[in-house]
Amino acid sequence: MTALATKAPAAFETPFLSSLISLIRAEDSYGAWENRSDARLLEDFIVTRAEKREMPMMADPDPDTIDRVEKFYKAVGLAIERQSGLMASPMMKISHEGFGRVVLLVGRLVAFSKSLRDVHRFGFEDFDTLAAEGMKAVDQALAVIEKFPDVARA
Amino acid sequence: MTALATKAPAAFETPFLSSLISLIRAEDSYGAWENRSDARLLEDFIVTRAEKREMPMMADPDPDTIDRVEKFYKAVGLAIERQSGLMASPMMKISHEGFGRVVLLVGRLVAFSKSLRDVHRFGFEDFDTLAAEGMKAVDQALAVIEKFPDVARA
Repeated sequence: MTALATKAPAAFETPFLSSLISLIRAEDSYGAWENRSDARLLEDFIVTRAEKREMPMMADPDPDTIDRVEKFYKAVGLAIERQSGLMASPMMKISHEGFGRVVLLVGRLVAFSKSLRDVHRFGFEDFDTLAAEGMKAVDQALAVIEKFPDVARA
Repeated sequence: MTALATKAPAAFETPFLSSLISLIRAEDSYGAWENRSDARLLEDFIVTRAEKREMPMMADPDPDTIDRVEKFYKAVGLAIERQSGLMASPMMKISHEGFGRVVLLVGRLVAFSKSLRDVHRFGFEDFDTLAAEGMKAVDQALAVIEKFPDVARA
């Protein structure tokens, strides 16, 4: 709810957020979300600091949360692909305690690699932060691809 | 049982099988398997053609089978590390239908990548085949590392 108030239209035009929105809309085979705004589709990605504080971290991260983490990195991959023309496949490993690792593979290159922690609390303060964090990963990966173009094409 | 009969001592001296045996023995914190032979520890990796034919492929691969696939590629990673001095981390993605992908990452390099299928029936005809298949993966990865040494060290 707070999220919708802080909605920044520019965020939605970043290659990352537009990729994330395409991925989510692609799952809507029956058109049930056709009339939903982009902001509405992304609202579960917004978790405020106050909400995070209230989240228990005892049990396993719930499947919906893991699904969102996967979508986030798939969207990073799709944005990389749209910008570089090279396919980027995400692979993720999450332990039961909410720790893990995610990588984006482009050809023989590990274009992006990140340790994950507190997966239970995955979420972003607002749409600007969501877009900025996604774009940070996209830009890091594109820089690595630029550094090792032969490996990315191998 | 058949497996023990076809045991080839040379197989056990390959860098792959000796890595696999170390990994399995490392899990034995209480020394329960101290008196078990190496062949006995590896017997679940041996699945004959006839046994495979009888395996149902309907349901999800069982967790013990997935655990064996993971151990196999961890051992490939350990053998790579022992031979190259570079850490190789396996990442695996297995769908519920027994399909998937496994990669071994060395620095920024995807040193090994393989599509998995029929994970339900993971296993090898005998110890020689187990050792040969493991060494094939080790050698492929080492060749890729040799081709892109900077990326493997990045």
